[in-house]
Amino acid sequence: MIIRPEQHWFLRLFDWHGSVLSKIVFRLLLNLMMSIIAIISYQWYEQLGIHLTVAPFSLLGIAIAIFLGFRNSAGYNRFVEARNLWGTVLIAQRTLVRQLKNILPAESAAHQRLVSYLVAFSWSLKHQLRKTDPSADLARLLPAQSVAEILASSMPTNRILLLAGDELGRLRAEGKIGDVTFSLMDNKLDELGHALGGCERLASTPVPFAYTLILQRTVYLFCTLLPFALVGDLHYMTPFVSVFISYTFLSWDSLAEELEDPFGTAANDLPLNAMCNTIERNLLDMTGQHPLPEKLAPDRHYNLT
Amino acid sequence: MIIRPEQHWFLRLFDWHGSVLSKIVFRLLLNLMMSIIAIISYQWYEQLGIHLTVAPFSLLGIAIAIFLGFRNSAGYNRFVEARNLWGTVLIAQRTLVRQLKNILPAESAAHQRLVSYLVAFSWSLKHQLRKTDPSADLARLLPAQSVAEILASSMPTNRILLLAGDELGRLRAEGKIGDVTFSLMDNKLDELGHALGGCERLASTPVPFAYTLILQRTVYLFCTLLPFALVGDLHYMTPFVSVFISYTFLSWDSLAEELEDPFGTAANDLPLNAMCNTIERNLLDMTGQHPLPEKLAPDRHYNLT
Amino acid sequence: MIIRPEQHWFLRLFDWHGSVLSKIVFRLLLNLMMSIIAIISYQWYEQLGIHLTVAPFSLLGIAIAIFLGFRNSAGYNRFVEARNLWGTVLIAQRTLVRQLKNILPAESAAHQRLVSYLVAFSWSLKHQLRKTDPSADLARLLPAQSVAEILASSMPTNRILLLAGDELGRLRAEGKIGDVTFSLMDNKLDELGHALGGCERLASTPVPFAYTLILQRTVYLFCTLLPFALVGDLHYMTPFVSVFISYTFLSWDSLAEELEDPFGTAANDLPLNAMCNTIERNLLDMTGQHPLPEKLAPDRHYNLT
Amino acid sequence: MIIRPEQHWFLRLFDWHGSVLSKIVFRLLLNLMMSIIAIISYQWYEQLGIHLTVAPFSLLGIAIAIFLGFRNSAGYNRFVEARNLWGTVLIAQRTLVRQLKNILPAESAAHQRLVSYLVAFSWSLKHQLRKTDPSADLARLLPAQSVAEILASSMPTNRILLLAGDELGRLRAEGKIGDVTFSLMDNKLDELGHALGGCERLASTPVPFAYTLILQRTVYLFCTLLPFALVGDLHYMTPFVSVFISYTFLSWDSLAEELEDPFGTAANDLPLNAMCNTIERNLLDMTGQHPLPEKLAPDRHYNLT
Amino acid sequence: MIIRPEQHWFLRLFDWHGSVLSKIVFRLLLNLMMSIIAIISYQWYEQLGIHLTVAPFSLLGIAIAIFLGFRNSAGYNRFVEARNLWGTVLIAQRTLVRQLKNILPAESAAHQRLVSYLVAFSWSLKHQLRKTDPSADLARLLPAQSVAEILASSMPTNRILLLAGDELGRLRAEGKIGDVTFSLMDNKLDELGHALGGCERLASTPVPFAYTLILQRTVYLFCTLLPFALVGDLHYMTPFVSVFISYTFLSWDSLAEELEDPFGTAANDLPLNAMCNTIERNLLDMTGQHPLPEKLAPDRHYNLT
Repeated sequence: MIIRPEQHWFLRLFDWHGSVLSKIVFRLLLNLMMSIIAIISYQWYEQLGIHLTVAPFSLLGIAIAIFLGFRNSAGYNRFVEARNLWGTVLIAQRTLVRQLKNILPAESAAHQRLVSYLVAFSWSLKHQLRKTDPSADLARLLPAQSVAEILASSMPTNRILLLAGDELGRLRAEGKIGDVTFSLMDNKLDELGHALGGCERLASTPVPFAYTLILQRTVYLFCTLLPFALVGDLHYMTPFVSVFISYTFLSWDSLAEELEDPFGTAANDLPLNAMCNTIERNLLDMTGQHPLPEKLAPDRHYNLT
Repeated sequence: MIIRPEQHWFLRLFDWHGSVLSKIVFRLLLNLMMSIIAIISYQWYEQLGIHLTVAPFSLLGIAIAIFLGFRNSAGYNRFVEARNLWGTVLIAQRTLVRQLKNILPAESAAHQRLVSYLVAFSWSLKHQLRKTDPSADLARLLPAQSVAEILASSMPTNRILLLAGDELGRLRAEGKIGDVTFSLMDNKLDELGHALGGCERLASTPVPFAYTLILQRTVYLFCTLLPFALVGDLHYMTPFVSVFISYTFLSWDSLAEELEDPFGTAANDLPLNAMCNTIERNLLDMTGQHPLPEKLAPDRHYNLT
Repeated sequence: MIIRPEQHWFLRLFDWHGSVLSKIVFRLLLNLMMSIIAIISYQWYEQLGIHLTVAPFSLLGIAIAIFLGFRNSAGYNRFVEARNLWGTVLIAQRTLVRQLKNILPAESAAHQRLVSYLVAFSWSLKHQLRKTDPSADLARLLPAQSVAEILASSMPTNRILLLAGDELGRLRAEGKIGDVTFSLMDNKLDELGHALGGCERLASTPVPFAYTLILQRTVYLFCTLLPFALVGDLHYMTPFVSVFISYTFLSWDSLAEELEDPFGTAANDLPLNAMCNTIERNLLDMTGQHPLPEKLAPDRHYNLT
Repeated sequence: MIIRPEQHWFLRLFDWHGSVLSKIVFRLLLNLMMSIIAIISYQWYEQLGIHLTVAPFSLLGIAIAIFLGFRNSAGYNRFVEARNLWGTVLIAQRTLVRQLKNILPAESAAHQRLVSYLVAFSWSLKHQLRKTDPSADLARLLPAQSVAEILASSMPTNRILLLAGDELGRLRAEGKIGDVTFSLMDNKLDELGHALGGCERLASTPVPFAYTLILQRTVYLFCTLLPFALVGDLHYMTPFVSVFISYTFLSWDSLAEELEDPFGTAANDLPLNAMCNTIERNLLDMTGQHPLPEKLAPDRHYNLT
Repeated sequence: MIIRPEQHWFLRLFDWHGSVLSKIVFRLLLNLMMSIIAIISYQWYEQLGIHLTVAPFSLLGIAIAIFLGFRNSAGYNRFVEARNLWGTVLIAQRTLVRQLKNILPAESAAHQRLVSYLVAFSWSLKHQLRKTDPSADLARLLPAQSVAEILASSMPTNRILLLAGDELGRLRAEGKIGDVTFSLMDNKLDELGHALGGCERLASTPVPFAYTLILQRTVYLFCTLLPFALVGDLHYMTPFVSVFISYTFLSWDSLAEELEDPFGTAANDLPLNAMCNTIERNLLDMTGQHPLPEKLAPDRHYNLT
């Protein structure tokens, strides 16, 4: 995710990183070429009775804009939901650690064991969503035996939740917490289970493929034909206006597609590494395990992954 | 549901499976025919004072696009809600199994009985929503006596929930869990009851039929008349532009109708088989019942049912 | 609510029942008449300097379409909320019966008494929302003394909830259930109270009347003037195009108004009778009280009330 | 809030009360005057090279309609949320009284004390939101000592909640209810606290002022210039069409503003008096305190305050 | 946030503070300059075959308006969510104090200690969101030792929650409250944790930067080119209409950006100081700690920070 320092509105216009421009620049060049073809061949095909006007393209363009608006909402809502789910992970984990400290202030070994599982949960979730290997992070955080059990399972992140619950179950079996306080903390594990399931859902169920397909077909064809509709009115200004209109439509389409799957490392995706880092720093701070790991910072293109 | 491997944007334009193109191709051909009729008969009916222009069709087309946008939201929201409900099934079941293991780590027979009921619940829900016969799946998962009781009921899936609750009630009656821990797990059955009721609601209450009717009438009539409005301006380009505009409107209308009922096996429906399979693999893994069933994969048209 | 068997898209276009066509046919005829007047008087009033063009009507038509889109959302959301509330009634009642059976499997007299109250609750709610007389249904389900108490109250449905709670209170006072399990079931009564209050809210608070008023005024005036704006361009095609555009706008306006109050018996209202019947069948089946009442089916116009 | 008896669609068009017409009639007359000025001065300023056409106003009008649609949603959502919050007040209070009766059926003095506090809570909330004096209503419902304490506080409605909670705390201290049943009822007070806080939030945080400002400026300027853009095409029909378009835009703007603050006594505001009356009638009926106060009815303009 | 006294609609049009006018006035002057250049150079570049018409700008303008509408929703929703989160802080804190008073009416020292932590929580949250120094407010409210501990932590606001929970944990350890009543109050701390996490999420995750970028680029370019498209039709009226249209688009874009980050002190941001003041006044009033601090009032530009 691009985290920009404040910037003058004029400079922003020439920003390259962080926008989707790099993804669509080839298609814009194609459109430019089409415009030039339209200018050159205009008089020739006009004589053949082939003729395009702005009016039907106006109708079509507005219809496509309405549908693009819908798809942007769908994509953006997925982005927001993914962010909320990760927010829930942080909130539920902080609350769980707070409860354990408030109820059993003296059991600092239990605090630390639970914190290890919680931090491992968030890193493991990140690795699961980005399809990367969690073993290094797990080995850093958990005893070897737990790591082995987790990696042997076909759903590692879910297994970590089970093990964290076993910790609470042990405290209950030892009589250190009663049923009511156990329930209180179990609810937080339940929230983590919801966040896990929600992230899995977003990752495994994209926006129906037909939306992508229909919009891309209509947007591309629209942009390709546009120069031929504009050339009659605009002559030499055709390339300029045509590329401008195409930029508007193609960039929205491209951005919607990028936001639909917010767990990657692209410019508009969620900074999962930074979030895991925040979680780790928060939980260690709450249980007094210093020094805290360094806070992650954006790279030189202001991209935080 | 179509699950595509990453694909170049250019190749996507020629994708056939997964789009709704197959459903509307006949109507597009009809539109093509109309365009040709419009070109041929143009001069003749123009003399009769019959005359259509783009302007009123522009107004009409944008109004229809706004209404289509509304209906797509309604359809897509049903799709998303259905997906969320199935997500809840997975989450609530995993949490319930986790709780049972955390609270009663040693009672593995009870674990396995509960898991059987939960897995049977999800397969039975799938069969109920797709109106298929659940008996084979039930026989595979549950003892014959339970199967008989379930199939004798007029609401089999709901009956499975009742039986799963009886398991918990038995543990409580035997004093193995107290009222508070019973409540904790009963809440998960309650979540499953909400998911069941929500799915039944989506299946039994379509989007009001009049929306479908009004939109289809106006979209079809609009597409049919469109060539006659365009031909005065576009002459030989009429078929091309008319089919393009018709494709945009008809495909959105068709997709909205497909998403409205997301429990089928069409290209944009939910992969209920794969979800049941995931649930079964998760719960068996959590209770150590190996080997897990094979993971379901999309067919060769990338369709996961 | 119209529940249609699958139908070919072509036949649908001529469907009469289930659409709002019957409600607006008179206004469409009026529009047709206006179109004819426009054609006849066109040359005459044109000479007087009275002149209408499509352009301002295009602006106005799109603005009205945007506002109609907003009102359709408002109306449709009320329809969906009403359906969700009735879904909650079914879900909460099934869960409550399940809990009672799981906790007290042997107390079948208590099961049946509670089921009677719950079924009576849903029928009474239906009668309240449709302003019909509940006494026959109550007499069928409850002992005469309870019926008398319920009908004496000025809020019968709410009173049934109070009596159902008294049943649970009695079980608690007799020591058959503890405070925790009482709470568990009390929560379900609370859900029913929310559903009751929600339905009352929808019934007593319509969409602000000014929305209806402003939209109807602008839609009707727009449709009435439209022929005079179209006639200059379209001549003899005016009636056709004008009625088509009017149909689009009037049908959306009419449907939005119908959906706003979803508790009636019109083609797009909720099938409350069928829902009460489903609830009754579910709860009787769960407590083994056979035979179940017959399942309600749509009438010959596919209308389920 | 206007509660209309069923009315023929034709008569509705001439309804004066209940619409926002009275608020914008002056601005419509202004627009009429502008139209006449436009007709008179048309030929004169046309010679000066001052020239306005419909096309840019069409673009502008549609953009404004889209923004008006957004603001209407924002305003309407506040109206709906306010109504939901008041619905919650009724629901939570009924549930609380039901719980107290189910748990302690014999303590009718406690029932009545609690009902007094709850009824006072809703009247006090109404007075707080409408900035009127609550003392008469409080004196009618509560003992003088409580009234004095409430009025001495700077947040009277919140103080009533505190006193209602003291009642429950007293029952708990006397051992009549246990911790679990106390919690059950405390949850309902918590719901009331949420409703109170929600209403305060709506009342103290309007829609950002800049929305109102930008929309009114653009709408008014648009309507003022519109006649000059139309007069070239429409000549003598300018006043008619211009006033019609202005009516559409001004009435939506005006209605959005009215709905934004739904706690007043205007035609489209919530009938808080009637709601408090309903709450009082419900709670008294539940605890058998007859006779109930008279049900409030709309005034002769169908306005329920 | 601008809190205006009631004002005549006519006067509002000339309001300067509170609108976003000050932010865009430079860009409007730029647009004015462009319009003048367009008028002057019109005949010259027209001869070169450079030619712009309104039609493609109409299509583009409406598409941009649709996307602006989407972004306004996104920005406004963040504003509303932020307001709701702060509403939750007030509500949860009032409820927690009420519960403590209802359950332990005599422990006024505990009441005051808890109130101090809660009030400090809200001021600390404000300072965190506005990146200002909390130490003065903390020192005013809490004992020096707690202040030192809080400021030593890298997440001060979260640490305050931990300390408030320790208070409750101490009451539980002393046997003054049982597990159930502890849970009841712990839930309120959990709500505060959600509000804290939610505010952090809003502050750390802006609307994807690409939205801002794409919209600003298209809006600015659109406004810059607009005069050249209008000048052919409007001649001397070009500057007026062009600035008007630009004002509409630029002000919506600017407002959306302002609302996206609602925690600042600009005209349309949330009045966090006033909210903290309200919270402090409420909690002190509930625990009888008089005199209350003065209520904050808007400054002379009606701005409440």
